[in-house]
Amino acid sequence: MTEVTGKTDPIQSVALSDDGGSVVILDQTQLPNREEYLTLTTAKEMYDAIYYLKVRGAPAIGICAGYCVYCLARQSGSEDYDAFLAAFRRAKDYLNSARPTAVNLSWALNRMEGVVLAQRERPVPAILAALEAECRLIHEEDIAMCAAISRHGLTLLKDGDGVLTHCNAGPLATSRYGTALGPLFLGWEQGLRFRVFADETRPLLQGARLTSYELRRAGIDVTLICDNMASIVMKNGWIQACLVGCDRVAANGDTANKIGTSGVAILAKHYGIPFYVLGPTSTIDLRCPTGDNIEIELRPPEEIREKFYREPMAPSDVKCYNPAFDVTDHRLIAGIVTEGGICRPPYEKSLAALF
Amino acid sequence: MTEVTGKTDPIQSVALSDDGGSVVILDQTQLPNREEYLTLTTAKEMYDAIYYLKVRGAPAIGICAGYCVYCLARQSGSEDYDAFLAAFRRAKDYLNSARPTAVNLSWALNRMEGVVLAQRERPVPAILAALEAECRLIHEEDIAMCAAISRHGLTLLKDGDGVLTHCNAGPLATSRYGTALGPLFLGWEQGLRFRVFADETRPLLQGARLTSYELRRAGIDVTLICDNMASIVMKNGWIQACLVGCDRVAANGDTANKIGTSGVAILAKHYGIPFYVLGPTSTIDLRCPTGDNIEIELRPPEEIREKFYREPMAPSDVKCYNPAFDVTDHRLIAGIVTEGGICRPPYEKSLAALF
Repeated sequence: MTEVTGKTDPIQSVALSDDGGSVVILDQTQLPNREEYLTLTTAKEMYDAIYYLKVRGAPAIGICAGYCVYCLARQSGSEDYDAFLAAFRRAKDYLNSARPTAVNLSWALNRMEGVVLAQRERPVPAILAALEAECRLIHEEDIAMCAAISRHGLTLLKDGDGVLTHCNAGPLATSRYGTALGPLFLGWEQGLRFRVFADETRPLLQGARLTSYELRRAGIDVTLICDNMASIVMKNGWIQACLVGCDRVAANGDTANKIGTSGVAILAKHYGIPFYVLGPTSTIDLRCPTGDNIEIELRPPEEIREKFYREPMAPSDVKCYNPAFDVTDHRLIAGIVTEGGICRPPYEKSLAALF
Repeated sequence: MTEVTGKTDPIQSVALSDDGGSVVILDQTQLPNREEYLTLTTAKEMYDAIYYLKVRGAPAIGICAGYCVYCLARQSGSEDYDAFLAAFRRAKDYLNSARPTAVNLSWALNRMEGVVLAQRERPVPAILAALEAECRLIHEEDIAMCAAISRHGLTLLKDGDGVLTHCNAGPLATSRYGTALGPLFLGWEQGLRFRVFADETRPLLQGARLTSYELRRAGIDVTLICDNMASIVMKNGWIQACLVGCDRVAANGDTANKIGTSGVAILAKHYGIPFYVLGPTSTIDLRCPTGDNIEIELRPPEEIREKFYREPMAPSDVKCYNPAFDVTDHRLIAGIVTEGGICRPPYEKSLAALF
């Protein structure tokens, strides 16, 4: 077991190899049973890692894509700019097709392409050096953003607090320290001791598979519960704050996050417990006035009826409703924590003031 | 698939065989994948059926035990009363040891023994006839009780309503029509159409495995959801009432039921949806003043981390908190429906008036 030292040994979900020629990722599909690192060298290996969710979490995918396209550019062997650019774009388009809807994937690849275009007058080795600097910068920026969110979030907690979290917004999905889990990792390093309760987060069990794994690995006190046990742990007086991530925040503060988040917020309000949302300013969408404007992705019934099980746990023809996200009403949210600080109600004003 | 006829073909979870020599049960451990009926003839087969939860649900276990001890008494072959009584008691004690804490098991067996003792002056064939009548009566009384609860509960619903339920309180656990599901089956027979949403009910998935199976089999419109989706279906406006069973009701109306029930009640209050508890008066415990006096059974972590899965879904050493029940505050309950009628707040008065 991880020794309890008060110092986290953060999970590195994505990194450039020491020789700079490959990308090393922690295979998240093998968690929590096997902590296996994969070395990605060929374009096909990189594509598959993204496609098969071996690397997941929007920021982590973006970081990975930056490193991947740099490695492939290095392999192209072209000294001629036009040939180099053509090879770069083939690699970029191929990687980008692995998960067409992941915003961070195309965002990171476009940012890398911008470097190639901006450096067109320079020799290929110089372009490669600029590309390496850029992909490392993407990673470092994410680390700095998570650290800032963690610092702000930590001001909301006190030593010994019980904290409930839902889904996974930790280092695996981002980079050290994560967003919603950031204050817990940062506090741990500073000697604070929290008691964390992690919702397992059906149907895909990110809380069980990833959050409980990440926290346990760091030595942080974590107790796994089923989603329907959030009410009793709050009633027991064990929870002083709820921390969750976010996928999209509307201008009025309504927040889309993993399915079940709104239920946690309602329970927290009932029991008088503050409920906080943590995420980068890039998830705040001021063009989206309220949560009613956020479309909710519906996923297949098999995730509820069959996935993960030895045999089906419901009749094969029973209808399932399987939304991936829900929207938490802004009136249930005590604060929205970004790298720019903590926004408080009224959110129309405090969120707009960030930009 | 079951034809949609407006007439239910109720699941018979327990029955006496046509020749009266065996007990026929639906093996609930095989649901929802296989609808297998087992014929129990020997004492060992009967013990195992109860021990391995092939028959489950407190009322169903009681009914089954009555039939079982009758069949074993028939097999004893004794004409002498004392030998007959001794054989009866051996059978009774053996069956009773299958699940020592199940109240209905010992209750039904004691009731059957009472018949043997009351008929001590009569010949053994007459005692057997009285025993057969008694075990059939236990079953019929449960059917009548469920029917009464169903009738009262149905007055709370109107055609087309969306109904959310948690865990399983249907025919499988009791006898036709069940308790919380009773109004749905009865209404269906009367031509009413409800849209039912069944919480899957982690960790043991009684909602997925049993409730969605029972309703689907009858042709009733049922949609399976994960527990953490109750909030969004309520927000969507799809739920007009929540119906749940109960394991124990305190004198003030606080209700212990399957873990997660209290969360459903809090969400229902938030969205302005009435939340009803349905169960027999035998679950009302007037000696228990409030829910604080109800002890909550804690179950093993494996049920959360491993059970049902192909491989573990959480680190094997991560702590889990796994309470089997929670207590719903009486202030969240719009009505408690028993065979004696619907109790409304203040429950101290309305529950006491039942007795």
